[in-house]
Amino acid sequence: MIVVMRPHASEEHVRHVVDLIREYGLKEHIIYGTDRTVIACIGDKRTVDKGAIENAPMVDRIVPILSPYKMASTEVKKARTEIPIGPGRFPIGGKKVGLIAGPCSVESREQLLKIADAVKSAGGIGLRGGAYKPRTSPYSFQGLGVEGLKILAEARDRTGLAIVTEVTSLENLEAVAQYADVLQIGARNMQHFPLLEACGKVAKPVLLKRGISATLEEWLLAAEYIINAGNQQVILCERGIRTFEDYVRNTLPLAVVPELHDKTHLPVLVDPSHSTGHAHLVPAMCRAAAAAGADGLLIEVHHDPEHAASDGAQSITPAQFADMMPTLRRIAQAIGRDL
Amino acid sequence: MIVVMRPHASEEHVRHVVDLIREYGLKEHIIYGTDRTVIACIGDKRTVDKGAIENAPMVDRIVPILSPYKMASTEVKKARTEIPIGPGRFPIGGKKVGLIAGPCSVESREQLLKIADAVKSAGGIGLRGGAYKPRTSPYSFQGLGVEGLKILAEARDRTGLAIVTEVTSLENLEAVAQYADVLQIGARNMQHFPLLEACGKVAKPVLLKRGISATLEEWLLAAEYIINAGNQQVILCERGIRTFEDYVRNTLPLAVVPELHDKTHLPVLVDPSHSTGHAHLVPAMCRAAAAAGADGLLIEVHHDPEHAASDGAQSITPAQFADMMPTLRRIAQAIGRDL
Amino acid sequence: MIVVMRPHASEEHVRHVVDLIREYGLKEHIIYGTDRTVIACIGDKRTVDKGAIENAPMVDRIVPILSPYKMASTEVKKARTEIPIGPGRFPIGGKKVGLIAGPCSVESREQLLKIADAVKSAGGIGLRGGAYKPRTSPYSFQGLGVEGLKILAEARDRTGLAIVTEVTSLENLEAVAQYADVLQIGARNMQHFPLLEACGKVAKPVLLKRGISATLEEWLLAAEYIINAGNQQVILCERGIRTFEDYVRNTLPLAVVPELHDKTHLPVLVDPSHSTGHAHLVPAMCRAAAAAGADGLLIEVHHDPEHAASDGAQSITPAQFADMMPTLRRIAQAIGRDL
Amino acid sequence: MIVVMRPHASEEHVRHVVDLIREYGLKEHIIYGTDRTVIACIGDKRTVDKGAIENAPMVDRIVPILSPYKMASTEVKKARTEIPIGPGRFPIGGKKVGLIAGPCSVESREQLLKIADAVKSAGGIGLRGGAYKPRTSPYSFQGLGVEGLKILAEARDRTGLAIVTEVTSLENLEAVAQYADVLQIGARNMQHFPLLEACGKVAKPVLLKRGISATLEEWLLAAEYIINAGNQQVILCERGIRTFEDYVRNTLPLAVVPELHDKTHLPVLVDPSHSTGHAHLVPAMCRAAAAAGADGLLIEVHHDPEHAASDGAQSITPAQFADMMPTLRRIAQAIGRDL
Repeated sequence: MIVVMRPHASEEHVRHVVDLIREYGLKEHIIYGTDRTVIACIGDKRTVDKGAIENAPMVDRIVPILSPYKMASTEVKKARTEIPIGPGRFPIGGKKVGLIAGPCSVESREQLLKIADAVKSAGGIGLRGGAYKPRTSPYSFQGLGVEGLKILAEARDRTGLAIVTEVTSLENLEAVAQYADVLQIGARNMQHFPLLEACGKVAKPVLLKRGISATLEEWLLAAEYIINAGNQQVILCERGIRTFEDYVRNTLPLAVVPELHDKTHLPVLVDPSHSTGHAHLVPAMCRAAAAAGADGLLIEVHHDPEHAASDGAQSITPAQFADMMPTLRRIAQAIGRDL
Repeated sequence: MIVVMRPHASEEHVRHVVDLIREYGLKEHIIYGTDRTVIACIGDKRTVDKGAIENAPMVDRIVPILSPYKMASTEVKKARTEIPIGPGRFPIGGKKVGLIAGPCSVESREQLLKIADAVKSAGGIGLRGGAYKPRTSPYSFQGLGVEGLKILAEARDRTGLAIVTEVTSLENLEAVAQYADVLQIGARNMQHFPLLEACGKVAKPVLLKRGISATLEEWLLAAEYIINAGNQQVILCERGIRTFEDYVRNTLPLAVVPELHDKTHLPVLVDPSHSTGHAHLVPAMCRAAAAAGADGLLIEVHHDPEHAASDGAQSITPAQFADMMPTLRRIAQAIGRDL
Repeated sequence: MIVVMRPHASEEHVRHVVDLIREYGLKEHIIYGTDRTVIACIGDKRTVDKGAIENAPMVDRIVPILSPYKMASTEVKKARTEIPIGPGRFPIGGKKVGLIAGPCSVESREQLLKIADAVKSAGGIGLRGGAYKPRTSPYSFQGLGVEGLKILAEARDRTGLAIVTEVTSLENLEAVAQYADVLQIGARNMQHFPLLEACGKVAKPVLLKRGISATLEEWLLAAEYIINAGNQQVILCERGIRTFEDYVRNTLPLAVVPELHDKTHLPVLVDPSHSTGHAHLVPAMCRAAAAAGADGLLIEVHHDPEHAASDGAQSITPAQFADMMPTLRRIAQAIGRDL
Repeated sequence: MIVVMRPHASEEHVRHVVDLIREYGLKEHIIYGTDRTVIACIGDKRTVDKGAIENAPMVDRIVPILSPYKMASTEVKKARTEIPIGPGRFPIGGKKVGLIAGPCSVESREQLLKIADAVKSAGGIGLRGGAYKPRTSPYSFQGLGVEGLKILAEARDRTGLAIVTEVTSLENLEAVAQYADVLQIGARNMQHFPLLEACGKVAKPVLLKRGISATLEEWLLAAEYIINAGNQQVILCERGIRTFEDYVRNTLPLAVVPELHDKTHLPVLVDPSHSTGHAHLVPAMCRAAAAAGADGLLIEVHHDPEHAASDGAQSITPAQFADMMPTLRRIAQAIGRDL
């Protein structure tokens, strides 16, 4: 960390900061520039809350140097992490791009099995579908609960698809962990730390969605909570961020894919459905995400979007899903991967 | 709700949408404009997920008309809600502006009592301080837990200040509810719906912070979750939003105060500490929030910010807190209120 | 346009709004809902400033229905616009994806010709390079001016590449129009309306970059200014938007590509250099933009980025540019286009 | 400036960066930390484009230390700048808060004089009103031009109010400079550098609005362009930034006021009309801006907002303007100022 002093800081001000730095167990290194004095702190520790030093007199600001996460970082582990999921042990993060698709919510046995069959036959490797639904309004459909989980498990038995479903709270973690192949932590829970820690104690892969306005650092620190609690099988999933744009539900920032591949060894998926919010934008964003190097896609597919219990506006049909496949495969191959 | 058709929608497309609308239990009202047909839907229900209609052919978009929250709305209850807190039953939302101050975290008995005394003697009516801390990094100080709650309770007994402290999870709700006067739900938990519902079943006021990128509608729907579960004592607290601005930790959007006073009967506090992130900006934002009509302020005060275990950069000292009081009182009086 | 009344608006309030609507030359259509009255206005005119009606008593808000642009819209012209550029008349907006590359600034004859040769031999169809540079700081390199334009023209004569260079002000429009094949309007000038109108009177294609925080509507209205002044050859270019993200200079929102292809007939380019700000992110974003359906790319290429006079951090080298080409070609072919 | 190397950078990589730093005329200072090497550069020059170094192998990032502006900075000039405006030479930036009010556009002589009289009698010190209007749509009212300027001048002669009006382009600078007391540069032109430089050569105060998504640094660099060209009379005016918030036209970030008072000696105004976009939010934001320490306010006032040619939704009436005055005066006095 670097402490930048204000222009007219006296030697006494510098001395005071040096004392603080030493109290925090660090070693100082003072650099007298032409306009400013800066103090580099050696032995920077991730556990020290350095912000406090900013409050010292004549300190302008603190510049952190280390990334605050460790175990999620390529600094610590260079080899890319592959995470096998589902009965087929499809390796997320490997050469092949994994397509996980399905409805926003499990609405009924008939609905889910119909969609699961379509996802399977089009070439998907996982089935998504919410049994517990975090809904913005208390008056919206809240999911089928355990009943939904059982339907998902039946769909897995029938198709071999890996089941990805959301755990929304400590209350339903046990149930979800019993039936799902991958525990999804939704964007709204990305910083629900007790849930992150609890998922860190489950022996199943965790799909961690990016919070709607999370920085990469916050996101990777959330992953670090899970890893730190004992579970290294963390899959990141970008689902769009909140910006001023109004033609989309969220803005999909695809540069996150190469940036994460540089900063972390964890696999990176993209959800083109939540990040656009409109079905007509989904195919192009699936293609773009694949071309950017995403390790997989999480796509909302519904056989009757006009009657979906949730997220109908952004769901594509099984036919549209199947139609995209040849193009996605060619794009994957163009960048040396496959589908 | 209004369905806007695309320019060249045929009569058949319109008919298809009308059928959908009727299926959803609504009555249609078709308006043929010069360029576009729009269909107004009468009998609009908050429980219908209308987004699905957007997926129908030749529909351009859906425009909601009703606000999706009810019980939090001035449409349903016009009289402003006053919520008495703490041993002194100070009415938040009444004529007087309530000042709640204290450290980010409870660090020790000595620290907390010293600050509590200072807050009391300067004219504060509540004491804030975290016993359970949601921290971005797993390596940061995580709070004293129940021990911290007991110290807070002792400070209340000693000073008469109302205790405001955060419940971070279903796990610690019972403990927090036992010791606190006001349950704080933090920004990161604003859409942790199971926690909202659980707090809705506790007979204590809930201070609901705005999520860092929540719209007003999402925030009021979060309040609606609490009210809908049975607890009408909801206090809203603005704590800054995430924007591109980099000289502040968050951007404090004070127009939210008059807008909320128009849209909801619930009281509105402002937290100038988290919303700026820097102690030198806090006094001006306290004054601005009071002038904008905030019903109270939530301020981080620490007797030794340079050594605070968390949020030192944004904490003001007890002396700075006391110094602000006369000015804040004059501003409150200027707008017909008091301190 | 739709006027939404507040819940308890009286018949008199409605009557007042109806009078206003008629004054504005529109016809009203009143719909009495269960909670609200809304008034649809027929004969909606783009020239009326309807915001004023919002100020009438008991009006909640105004919902515009028509898009405010016309000539840029697919509502008016369905056939996609192809714009031939440069000596080779390469059709931007046609089947082939056009690659335009070059340095941020023209720094010297030697530098530009070297880069131009590399762009040409790698398969580029246009050469970018600034002679007039809009720089955030008055102390930065401001460009070579007319001298730079002459060097660009020489590069065109030598390579056959189309010259794309920025006009920064009414002052240099004439000079730029004399030498360039395509007049670039930069992000900071997207709403410099006198410049838009002046470019609308020049018989050369205009490349209009999106403002850093422009909505699509504002961007298409800027295009409308140019078309309305007489020039239909407008090429749109996305170059990233300002958000809270800090690992990129700007966030590249690629969903804009399919959305624009739906809303406008104008061609759409993507600039992966400014939108990321870091060379290591550029190749992945080139691939993603091509996969999303962009009609072309605008890429910063410099033979010695460490010594570039501007934007060195985001420039890739000629070798990196050439390396990307086979992959980009395969992606273009995967979606039925070519390079 | 500080160069942060990647974790596993070799001595050779460090050496290469040191060579670059020396080429740029700087002196290096290498600090070997436990995880990273960082290189401090002494003799940092504002004219060097340091971004280029980021492209060197194994460089992680560049951290600037100096603020890039000089003459606008309190580092160079500590004493606050007072700028007298109009016939009355009211000192903007002095003890008194200056209220400048008027319509968005000059629509007619009758309209303007009526409003001017009201502004004067309520205690305003300046009259705002656009003769040249930058309008998002080419189909909107574009202003009266020179005719409008003459009406403004007449209003000044009649009332003694200082005339603040916008210069939208190099084309109308001469005319505006002839009639106005203060040249306003609008948000959209904040980075139209040729206009900034041209205004820097006029001997009249310049009111420089913040761009809708400008950082403070960009804004102060825009001011620096004007000062650098010879005009020290720059008044800054915050008018709201673009964020995800949808209940306001823009978000008003009032912490900018104390932050600017710390960073620059230039006076700071606030425009509560554009920054909210809705008349019902304007009075509260006027109060908040005054309490935050703004040196003046720029307010849209129209005697008949329902028929205003532009910005009717955000205009308050002369009666509402007069009503606010006593409260604003008391707030100004509460913080040791006056009106």
